[in-house]
Amino acid sequence: MALIVQKYGGTSVGSPERIKNVARRVAKFKAQGHDLVVVVSAMSGETNRLIALAKEVQANPDPRELDVVISTGEQVTIGLLAMALKELGVDARSYTGAQVKVLTDSTFTKARIQSIDDEAMRADLAAGRVVIVAGFQGVDAEGNITTLGRGGSDTSGVALAAALKADECQIYTDVDGVYTTDPRVVPEARKLKTVTFEEMLEMASLGSKVLQIRSVEFAGKYNVKLRVLSSFQEEGEGTLITFEEDPTMEKPVVSGIAFNRDEARVNVTGVPDKPGIAYQILGPVADANIDVDMIIQNLGQDGTTDFSFTVPKNDLARAIKVLEGVQNHIGARSVVGDDKICKVSIVGVGMRSHVGVASTMFRTLAEEGINIQMISTSEIKISVIVDEKYLELAVRVLHRAFGLDRD
Amino acid sequence: MALIVQKYGGTSVGSPERIKNVARRVAKFKAQGHDLVVVVSAMSGETNRLIALAKEVQANPDPRELDVVISTGEQVTIGLLAMALKELGVDARSYTGAQVKVLTDSTFTKARIQSIDDEAMRADLAAGRVVIVAGFQGVDAEGNITTLGRGGSDTSGVALAAALKADECQIYTDVDGVYTTDPRVVPEARKLKTVTFEEMLEMASLGSKVLQIRSVEFAGKYNVKLRVLSSFQEEGEGTLITFEEDPTMEKPVVSGIAFNRDEARVNVTGVPDKPGIAYQILGPVADANIDVDMIIQNLGQDGTTDFSFTVPKNDLARAIKVLEGVQNHIGARSVVGDDKICKVSIVGVGMRSHVGVASTMFRTLAEEGINIQMISTSEIKISVIVDEKYLELAVRVLHRAFGLDRD
Repeated sequence: MALIVQKYGGTSVGSPERIKNVARRVAKFKAQGHDLVVVVSAMSGETNRLIALAKEVQANPDPRELDVVISTGEQVTIGLLAMALKELGVDARSYTGAQVKVLTDSTFTKARIQSIDDEAMRADLAAGRVVIVAGFQGVDAEGNITTLGRGGSDTSGVALAAALKADECQIYTDVDGVYTTDPRVVPEARKLKTVTFEEMLEMASLGSKVLQIRSVEFAGKYNVKLRVLSSFQEEGEGTLITFEEDPTMEKPVVSGIAFNRDEARVNVTGVPDKPGIAYQILGPVADANIDVDMIIQNLGQDGTTDFSFTVPKNDLARAIKVLEGVQNHIGARSVVGDDKICKVSIVGVGMRSHVGVASTMFRTLAEEGINIQMISTSEIKISVIVDEKYLELAVRVLHRAFGLDRD
Repeated sequence: MALIVQKYGGTSVGSPERIKNVARRVAKFKAQGHDLVVVVSAMSGETNRLIALAKEVQANPDPRELDVVISTGEQVTIGLLAMALKELGVDARSYTGAQVKVLTDSTFTKARIQSIDDEAMRADLAAGRVVIVAGFQGVDAEGNITTLGRGGSDTSGVALAAALKADECQIYTDVDGVYTTDPRVVPEARKLKTVTFEEMLEMASLGSKVLQIRSVEFAGKYNVKLRVLSSFQEEGEGTLITFEEDPTMEKPVVSGIAFNRDEARVNVTGVPDKPGIAYQILGPVADANIDVDMIIQNLGQDGTTDFSFTVPKNDLARAIKVLEGVQNHIGARSVVGDDKICKVSIVGVGMRSHVGVASTMFRTLAEEGINIQMISTSEIKISVIVDEKYLELAVRVLHRAFGLDRD
C-alpha cells in the first residue's frame, strides 16, 4: 500500500496499443492497493513532428509559442491513457502541467520547476482515482505554458514524487535498467541491481541516456527513491538508484563504462602561460552559449602553453569561429578543431578507496594500441578522449578488464 | 481603426503555407491600423485524427478526456500562427481557451460559453499586439478543459467579438460568402451581398453549412456584425449578415434555396387520434437523444391518424427500434422508415409580405413530376421532403423559378 509515481516515456506510449499496455500495468499496481500518479511523455515521434511543423512556419521558433505547440504532445497522451484506464474500469483523471499546477519560471523551452500544487491530486487519490499528469510541461506565474526541455518528463516524474512524498518513483523506459555499459556495444553488458546516485549522475552526463540528468539531481536533492524499469517486460526489479552509501557493502571498483560520441575537441596552442588565459579563451565560448565539457591545460614551456577542451560536435564550427575572432587578442599560435573523437569513461564509487584503477585503464588501452588524447579525472570517474574509431574496442576491453562481464 | 475579430477555419490553416497566408492577411489589416483578435480552428483533418486515436483506445471515449485530447488541435494552430506573425515582424500572443479565459459549463464535448475575460486581451491590444485565441475550446469553473462541439470555433469568434464589443466579426472560410444555393448543384448560384440573420439561421440549419448555427444565434443575441469571407481570395466583401430590417429596402421574395441530404423520414401510421399522442411518440425518441427536425401530423380519420417526422439518417435505425418498442403501447398500426429522402427549402424574409410563394414552389415541382412527401412552413421558409433522387433537379428548377440566377 504505497504511493507510487510512475513515468512512461515516449516509446512506452508510442501507439494506442502500447497505451493500453501501460493502462494494464497501472491497473495491476492499482489492484494491489497502491495509490498511483502516472506521468507520461508525448507519443514517440510526436514532439519532433511538432517541432518540424513549427520550423516550417518560423525557422527559429518563438520560444513562448513553441512551448504552446509542443506541450500538446503530452496533453494527447494523458487523455488517451485516462480513457484506456476507464475502459479497464479503473477511475482516472488527467491533468496538464497548468492544471496540476506545476509552477515553473518563465524560461520557455527549458523552464525550471519551482513548486507543485498537490491538492487536486491528493483529493483524486483519496477518491480512489489514478492521477495522470502530462510530463515535460508546466505553467509560469503569468499563466503561460512552459516546457522543461528534452527529457523533462523524467524531471516531472521525480518532482511529483518529491511533492507528494511518494514511496517510490518508477521510470519506465525501453531498457530494463542501468547496464554496465551499452549492450549494443558490448553484448556481455550486465544490468546493475543498484547504482549510486553519484554514479548515475556521471553515467547520465557521460551519455548513458537512461535518465535525464536533471531528474537524477532532483531525486538526490529531495531524496526520492528512484527506480528504472522496462515498460516492455512484465517482471523485473529494474535498477534502483541509491543515495546513501552503505559502508558495510562491498562496492565494485568500477560500476560501468560510459561513452559519448557527441563531443569534439578544440585545441588552442601556443598561448601565453599567464593568469587569466583560461577565462580569455572560455569566456567568449560561454558568451556564444556553447557548453564546454572536459577542459585540459598542460604545464607551459617557454612561457607558452596549450589549452584543450571539448564541445558538442554540433557547436564545433561555431566555437572555432569564436576563437579565431579572439586569437590575435589572446596571442595564440593556432586554433584547431577535431570532431573525429569520442569520450570513454569508467565510473564507480569504489574508485575512491582503490588505487591502481587509472593505471589499469591506461594499460588496457595501451595494449590495444589506442592513443589517449586527453585525460580528465574526478573522484568516481576517469574519462579519456580517443579517436572515435576506437570507441567500441575501448569500451569492450575496459568492460572486460574491470570484470564487468562477470556477475 | 476598428476592432476586428477574424476567425479562420481548418481549411484556411490547413498547412504551414496556409498559416503563413493567414498571417499575411492579418498583418495587412494590422498595418491599416486595426486592432485584431484572431480565432483559429485546428488544421484540417487534425480533429478527426485525434478522435480516431481516442476511439482506438476507447470505443466510446470518455467525454472529459476526449476534450483534453481534441483541444490540442487548436492549441497547435494558435502557436503556429503567432510564430508566423512574429516572422513577419508583427507582435502577437496566443491564448488557449483556458488562458483567455473562455468560461463554459461542464458539458464536455458540447459546452456552452458563459463568459469571457477580456482583461489580458485588452492589455495585449493596447500594447499593439495581435491576440490569437484557440477556437472551439474553453474551461469550466473547476479548470477542466471543455470543447464547444463541431464548428464551435465560429461560436468562439462571435462570443469574443461580443465580449470585446468588436466592430465586426469576420468569418473566413473556403467559400467567399453566402450563395443563393450550393454552386456545386446549381452553377448559376450567386453570392448574396447581405443576408438577414433570420435567413441565415434558416439556411444554416437547413444545411448550407457556411456558419455554425449557434454562432449566428449568438451574433443575433449580442448584435455582432458578422461577415463571411473567403480566406483564399485577396479581395471581396463577402456576405454581411444583417440584423435590423431596413423597411425601405426592397427584399427579394426568396433569398436562397437550401437543402439537406442527411435526413430520414419516420412514419407512424394508424395511431389513435387523441391528446398526448405526439408526446407518446416523440418522448421516447427524445429520451434516446435523437434530434427530430420536421414534424407532421395529418388530420385524423376514423379516430386514427398518421404521424411523420424526420431524423438524421444515422439515427433512423435507432429511432425505428425505439418506436417498435412502444408501438403496442401507443396502439399504432405500423412504424415505417425511409432514408431515401431529402429536404429542399426556399428561404426569404420577403415571403412575409408576398402571397403565392408556396404555390409557385409546388407548381414548379409538380411540373417536373416531383412528388412532395411532406411540407412544413415557417414565416420565412417553406420546406418539402422529396425522394432524394430529385434533389439536384428540385434545387435547380426552384432556383430558376424564383429568379435567383439573375442579378
